[in-house]
Amino acid sequence: MRVLITAGPTYEPIDPVRFIGNRSSGNMGAALASAAVDAGQEVTLVLGPVTAAIPIHEKIRRVDIFSSHDLLDAVLREFPAHDLLIMAAAVADFRPKQVRAEKVERGGTMTIELEATEDIAAAAGAMKKPHQRTVGFSLVERGNLARSREKMERKKLDLIVYNPLDTMSSTTIESVLLYPDGRSEELPTQGKGDFARTLVARAAALFA
Amino acid sequence: MRVLITAGPTYEPIDPVRFIGNRSSGNMGAALASAAVDAGQEVTLVLGPVTAAIPIHEKIRRVDIFSSHDLLDAVLREFPAHDLLIMAAAVADFRPKQVRAEKVERGGTMTIELEATEDIAAAAGAMKKPHQRTVGFSLVERGNLARSREKMERKKLDLIVYNPLDTMSSTTIESVLLYPDGRSEELPTQGKGDFARTLVARAAALFA
Repeated sequence: MRVLITAGPTYEPIDPVRFIGNRSSGNMGAALASAAVDAGQEVTLVLGPVTAAIPIHEKIRRVDIFSSHDLLDAVLREFPAHDLLIMAAAVADFRPKQVRAEKVERGGTMTIELEATEDIAAAAGAMKKPHQRTVGFSLVERGNLARSREKMERKKLDLIVYNPLDTMSSTTIESVLLYPDGRSEELPTQGKGDFARTLVARAAALFA
Repeated sequence: MRVLITAGPTYEPIDPVRFIGNRSSGNMGAALASAAVDAGQEVTLVLGPVTAAIPIHEKIRRVDIFSSHDLLDAVLREFPAHDLLIMAAAVADFRPKQVRAEKVERGGTMTIELEATEDIAAAAGAMKKPHQRTVGFSLVERGNLARSREKMERKKLDLIVYNPLDTMSSTTIESVLLYPDGRSEELPTQGKGDFARTLVARAAALFA
């Protein structure tokens, strides 16, 4: 099986030096990529700009991206050659409407108008072939599984991972797996490595 | 001699997950810290959130910071115990006026109002004792040495490094050193390691 995994943040340019970023470490995506390699899968990891060096298994093909637009390009280009897409990247929801060509000088105030970025999960859902599967994550307010379900349906995902927002920087993962047929599985709170092994197994089962 | 060096970017929070950042690698500051250790100096390196792991010499005391406010705090706290302050951090010029307590949900547009951050070099200049020296960097449009001089005077720096803006992501450094007494020294274009050795020597000479 060939697996495409997205991981890390995306950074959205404001001007030649500044950007809007988010705090994703990329560790979850890297753990998923390692678990997939251990399960004998062929892995492409599309990785955003992470603030610490992440050890990447030598068998993993790595594609570095910066912005949500780069990530969309990479997914549109790579997904057709893969069976499974796991979207663990923390894609920016907003980006500056205009990228300024010159560095804005210090002083006074400044206003940045933001617009929504493209919905990459929805784009992947729209291009998905019958033999392909897509898996997404949903970091929402604790208890709001309805929002995760709505997201799964709108983006045509085959599996979505609900994570409560308040566990964001935790080293452990608290999660419920949701499926389009109404099934759900609450996983025990566990480390990222254990969670990654479970999710890779559940994703492989989508092809049964 | 005890040297305090600031390096890397600062990231300014928008909400619990998002921030405004800039593309500083921190490599210049790390090169200066290594050169200072090689020159027998005692080094504290205040380092912003960098996107790749930087090898830090084991003799260097490292202080990690995130925002410009953290950096100001670190400089105010650390500078009194040091003789020399070299400010190589790419401090954000602007930060969101308000930090939102909740993650802003995707959808529609958003506007962020920015305000100027504190001027850390000026704050250090104002607290500087007669036995202390401060060194800053000035990344400006090519040829605008007048702007670098103005900055040196306003921030009471003892030495400022002019770098042309168009060399920003270059692996080599093109620079002119400027002094309050009107002296200037144009350095040959050189690698960061060579430049760092030269600057550490010139900074040490400020105490002669």
